[in-house]
Amino acid sequence: MKDKTFLMIPGPTPVPERVLLEIAKHPMGHRSGEFSKILESVYSDLKHIFQTSNDVLMYTASGTGAMDAAISNLVNPGDKVLSLVIGNFGQRWAKIAAAYGADVEVIEVEAGKAIAPQVLKDRLEKDTNKEIKIVTLTQNETSTGVTNDVKTLVSYIKEHGALSIVDGVTSIGAMECKMDEWGIDVLISGSQKGFMIPPGLSFLAASERAWAVHKECKRPDFYFNWSTNKKSVLENSTAFTPAVNLICGLKVALEMMKEEGLDNIIARHTKIAKALRKALKAINLQLFVEDEAIASTSITSVLPPEGVSVPDIRKVLKNDYDIVVANGQNKLKDKIFRMGTLGFVSERDAITAVGALEATLHKLGHKFELGKGVATLITELNK
Amino acid sequence: MKDKTFLMIPGPTPVPERVLLEIAKHPMGHRSGEFSKILESVYSDLKHIFQTSNDVLMYTASGTGAMDAAISNLVNPGDKVLSLVIGNFGQRWAKIAAAYGADVEVIEVEAGKAIAPQVLKDRLEKDTNKEIKIVTLTQNETSTGVTNDVKTLVSYIKEHGALSIVDGVTSIGAMECKMDEWGIDVLISGSQKGFMIPPGLSFLAASERAWAVHKECKRPDFYFNWSTNKKSVLENSTAFTPAVNLICGLKVALEMMKEEGLDNIIARHTKIAKALRKALKAINLQLFVEDEAIASTSITSVLPPEGVSVPDIRKVLKNDYDIVVANGQNKLKDKIFRMGTLGFVSERDAITAVGALEATLHKLGHKFELGKGVATLITELNK
Repeated sequence: MKDKTFLMIPGPTPVPERVLLEIAKHPMGHRSGEFSKILESVYSDLKHIFQTSNDVLMYTASGTGAMDAAISNLVNPGDKVLSLVIGNFGQRWAKIAAAYGADVEVIEVEAGKAIAPQVLKDRLEKDTNKEIKIVTLTQNETSTGVTNDVKTLVSYIKEHGALSIVDGVTSIGAMECKMDEWGIDVLISGSQKGFMIPPGLSFLAASERAWAVHKECKRPDFYFNWSTNKKSVLENSTAFTPAVNLICGLKVALEMMKEEGLDNIIARHTKIAKALRKALKAINLQLFVEDEAIASTSITSVLPPEGVSVPDIRKVLKNDYDIVVANGQNKLKDKIFRMGTLGFVSERDAITAVGALEATLHKLGHKFELGKGVATLITELNK
Repeated sequence: MKDKTFLMIPGPTPVPERVLLEIAKHPMGHRSGEFSKILESVYSDLKHIFQTSNDVLMYTASGTGAMDAAISNLVNPGDKVLSLVIGNFGQRWAKIAAAYGADVEVIEVEAGKAIAPQVLKDRLEKDTNKEIKIVTLTQNETSTGVTNDVKTLVSYIKEHGALSIVDGVTSIGAMECKMDEWGIDVLISGSQKGFMIPPGLSFLAASERAWAVHKECKRPDFYFNWSTNKKSVLENSTAFTPAVNLICGLKVALEMMKEEGLDNIIARHTKIAKALRKALKAINLQLFVEDEAIASTSITSVLPPEGVSVPDIRKVLKNDYDIVVANGQNKLKDKIFRMGTLGFVSERDAITAVGALEATLHKLGHKFELGKGVATLITELNK
């Protein structure tokens, strides 16, 4: 049905009406006192969501822009960077570091697995000359639906003395991520995920240690330069003309997040994702990430049942039920489909999704007890 | 009056209702076939507006992002860059080039003046060893309201053999800029100007010669990398998650531009700006740029009358008449105010602005024949 599309992909995620209407207003002057007040409130709320006392820089760019900003403001050619790769977005850190002349070492695990903290610990202990300057990692790997134990991994990186750079794109505002308490040095995220607004803004916060390393960076990118951008944050301004309308929408979204409360938001994501996993199993679907301990609470990857193809599932879900789920990426294309329950997603949305998925699989001839998915979901949600 | 604000600054510029409503729709998946069709139409229309057969790259970033992309994809440390500076935005080219290690030479003229083509010709003729690799220039200097003779300047740069990089941020979609016919090598622009949408997108097109130089660039920025981004343009896609909502709005704005016709759009800007200048003189105001030949047709800089301050004019215009005009920048702060007639601006808007400015100056005690501004404007518009 036209204009009925509901996104259940890892991003963009659904945007609240209140936010959309704010974005639809005529742009205001980005150098006006009125807009400066909006920035003041946004900058302050971002610190709360990032769980940090560090200033949060805001870029008019997608999440990859903030990833670029993280690397290009710290790395000098020849610097040793260790990239922990559990999927495509972990791989992106390695690509960016290499593009900026870093000597990149990769620790990679097969898709669907997380980094075993001990593996990192051993590698860092071997680095007695402290050659490793930076370790990049992903909290929630969007391409597989696996979550790393950032708290433990970062503690080992701190022990070693390297800087930790964490991709929080599909984790912040969905799962626990305590920048200061855990000692994360650089944390980035994007707007079209837990922040419930359309794509176009990304965020970066850096620790004092990271700022000190930045000062030694010979050639930071101009547009993404931390120092230029921070100066503007301190003035409740932006270095360059920002995406004014998206920022006005972000202000409203951040207010909604405060109203619900960060802990409640995280609890909601956890509850819905765990119930969804049980529901999917109840209709004889196999989960790509079986280990509950590392399964994402914002993205759930699912294997298609035997004899049913991922493209068919996605097509029927979209055409007959107006729900968009994501295909797998690269090697996982057509091997899995990914259901996002990230951001502005309610229990009702989960019921809708499981119901529509049951209808879809029923049409496609998959054998299961019709209704059992929804029944299981409702039971789990009300436990 | 609340929600009545009308922007007459150099940007953001007014956005048509049709575009705002498009932007307010729920985001669509950026990897969907539906969105790919939108990108196909946008990429094709951008080539028309840029008057080029080269692909136009689109960045989720402000105009400065595209400026960064222009320099960082061409310059290697030590390269000689000649920057023609007639104001702050011309200066920005020099800053970016320096940030990327270029050996920057600046030809600067005082604020309110344009580059005399002969001065560039002489400098380039002196460069017998062809050391100058790139020349940066600004078509319309937003900070002063002066337009350079890009056609002639670029012809000299071509003759010499250097690459020309042109800032078309406040000129494209307002004044003539024929990338291919004039032989511009790199042309950039931003969304919140002649394109009539909110800030958050910027555009860049490069000639074959520029692409050849890019291939020799040792360290292009990752996010702004021309090659990565062009690959996606050819696939009607984007390299990274783009500002989906703004792009949907851009599609509608580009359709409106095609409906009106590029020549008619340029004629409208010229007619309004020239009539505005006459009207301002008619109420005893002095124009910052007196030479009609170099006066911008998208931004008009005005000196305050004796005994009246720029801040007072801006305050009364904003508080009593809900019109925002821009102050001068840096050295020109409080020395001039700047009226934008860029993008979605009609004859009625010009009448409104002059009328409100008359009322403002009348309140502030400026002596002039009340009504003469509007009368002159109407006469000029109907010539």
